[in-house]
Amino acid sequence: MRTQVAIVGGGPAGLLLSHLLHLHGIDSVVLERHSQEYVQHRVRAGVLEQGTADLLREAGVGDRMLREGDVHDGVHLQFDEERLRIPFRELTGRGITVYGQQEVVRDLVERRRRDDGQVLFEVADVGVHDVTTDRPFVRFTHEGVERELRADFVAGCDGFHGVCRDTIPAGTRTVYERVHPFGWLGVLASVAPSSGELIYANHANGFALHSMRSAEVSRFYLQCAPDEPLDEWPDERIWAELRTRLGTPGWTLHDGPITDKTVTAMRSFVAEPLRHGRLFLAGDSAHIVPPTGAKGLNLAVSDVDRLADAVATYHRTGSTTGLDGYSAACLQRVWRVQNFSWWMTSLTHHFGGPDAAFERRLQRAQFDYLRTSTAAATTLAENYVGLPLR
Amino acid sequence: MRTQVAIVGGGPAGLLLSHLLHLHGIDSVVLERHSQEYVQHRVRAGVLEQGTADLLREAGVGDRMLREGDVHDGVHLQFDEERLRIPFRELTGRGITVYGQQEVVRDLVERRRRDDGQVLFEVADVGVHDVTTDRPFVRFTHEGVERELRADFVAGCDGFHGVCRDTIPAGTRTVYERVHPFGWLGVLASVAPSSGELIYANHANGFALHSMRSAEVSRFYLQCAPDEPLDEWPDERIWAELRTRLGTPGWTLHDGPITDKTVTAMRSFVAEPLRHGRLFLAGDSAHIVPPTGAKGLNLAVSDVDRLADAVATYHRTGSTTGLDGYSAACLQRVWRVQNFSWWMTSLTHHFGGPDAAFERRLQRAQFDYLRTSTAAATTLAENYVGLPLR
Repeated sequence: MRTQVAIVGGGPAGLLLSHLLHLHGIDSVVLERHSQEYVQHRVRAGVLEQGTADLLREAGVGDRMLREGDVHDGVHLQFDEERLRIPFRELTGRGITVYGQQEVVRDLVERRRRDDGQVLFEVADVGVHDVTTDRPFVRFTHEGVERELRADFVAGCDGFHGVCRDTIPAGTRTVYERVHPFGWLGVLASVAPSSGELIYANHANGFALHSMRSAEVSRFYLQCAPDEPLDEWPDERIWAELRTRLGTPGWTLHDGPITDKTVTAMRSFVAEPLRHGRLFLAGDSAHIVPPTGAKGLNLAVSDVDRLADAVATYHRTGSTTGLDGYSAACLQRVWRVQNFSWWMTSLTHHFGGPDAAFERRLQRAQFDYLRTSTAAATTLAENYVGLPLR
Repeated sequence: MRTQVAIVGGGPAGLLLSHLLHLHGIDSVVLERHSQEYVQHRVRAGVLEQGTADLLREAGVGDRMLREGDVHDGVHLQFDEERLRIPFRELTGRGITVYGQQEVVRDLVERRRRDDGQVLFEVADVGVHDVTTDRPFVRFTHEGVERELRADFVAGCDGFHGVCRDTIPAGTRTVYERVHPFGWLGVLASVAPSSGELIYANHANGFALHSMRSAEVSRFYLQCAPDEPLDEWPDERIWAELRTRLGTPGWTLHDGPITDKTVTAMRSFVAEPLRHGRLFLAGDSAHIVPPTGAKGLNLAVSDVDRLADAVATYHRTGSTTGLDGYSAACLQRVWRVQNFSWWMTSLTHHFGGPDAAFERRLQRAQFDYLRTSTAAATTLAENYVGLPLR
């Protein structure tokens, strides 16, 4: 087999890259470990920055998002029982779209099918080879047959646990990491959201987030231990704790059947550089942000937007400027987003150190500052809706 | 002896309070442990917020400050060799005045003398009594004689190591504290400043600050260990390290005779509330901020401005509203300033934890954000020049 770009990973990053390349007349093959059924149903992110939504629309894969996605013009922060709205449309002219990652994946898979794009699911034993030569290839097994995919370039869109990052020799990359002393207990519930916009709450018991995936599905998170045992969280305890942490006078949290519970450890991670020879990493394979700012998917979209453009420019003009600058340009945004995600995390979570009481007073002061300073509210708003993609 | 307000501590807080009360026709006596010579020469803060400078001018004690103080319209941040100016006049319409704390003290002592104000220096054995009754008094020794000063109110302006805070029973106050894993090596040098505005630098070797006290005196700080031995810092090493940490291409640091070296541990501290009966704490006796934001003196000025007003209102109208709200109102600003001082500290210092490399990348990202976002630069600017006093 031969293609122009071999794409390892069929999540939103790999699929969108394949589609964007197609719009530039460039062939690619997407290799995905999981089944189509799995990737179209796993619940992940759900907040699209303005730039992400615009890109999907401009790339012709935003029709259903425009119909079914929910555009928000603001977000709520809460400290104990006091809730504060950051009106980001008013402050920045931009907004976010609430639309599940699995829906984006479904739209992209359907569109790739319609355009006769090659997306292979349930691929195994993936290995990336010879990326420092001009004849890189990917070896894998599909439907029981071992195959080789030759390409001009390989895109590593295979997530944090994928194989591509480790193809880069340890001596030529640097890893930056911060491990957080807590996790998120994530809950999906079949109940209409109790708030029109997301609520990020800092309560004496810890962080809580009220998010949503649709008009019928609410998404909640509770700060917990990184290794919190799920069986200590029967549904009644979850609802009671959500009511406590998200409660404000006169507001009601509606409950309903809980359909999913997970515990996610929180991590901040960057592997530099994003390029090794003809291998280009994009999305979670190169960087993980804590989910507090809802940035992971958006950062992946920003990477592949840049990569598609660089590859297209190379194919059109022979110029390697975009490819050569890919890693540095992505990292500029990656670190901006790491900084914002850390800031949102540190504002809303309990770290439990020896000066925890001091820390919480600082958080309260920051909350009050956001309430009283337009400049401060604007820094949150412009990061939350997303700085311009390029 | 009897007065209306007994003021313990003759630093800038106590002296300014005494002067402001005098403008309202209220008598006070200031009791200071050190000699007049000492308080007028000890080098401390040197950056006055716009609101502090305005208050001194409006109170009629700003003539020399207006003549000799140096008004700055911006401040420099530096990351490695890249320097960035925050044009705070342009962003906020306000500025800072560089004028040494000892000069403020001298102006206030002279003015109190001219107005026949009572400022007793070299007072010893100070004890504050009966503040929860309506007949509080201060017992002290002056010129070898034990004396009692009766007053309506007692103001505790006697600094972090003063006696007033401990007059409040431990059970009725809460202490918030953060100890930082570094100190500042402070240096005074007889040389014209090498920069027209302050420079806060984050270098791979640690933080450095170039400040100034006059056209002939430069002030420098270097991040060091909290217990850094001074004898390991001969003058040549200090200049070499300052040149390294503050260096940018094409810029020259001028050296000169070093006249003073000190090591200061860094601390963030708040004792709540600021009132106990008829005792009111103001300034460092109630709160300490790390010096990174140059806020300590300014925060003390904000406290005594509020206290003078509350006492005056009480004497004029009998209303205790201002007195009753004093502590909460001050604490609102105290925590805002703690938050800002911590932010400036965390942006510019090395903390040396297990994720120090990650931390430094975040700092770099924040620096880049300040360079590219007007909102971000404005948050720094509006805090640095000082939010409105009331």
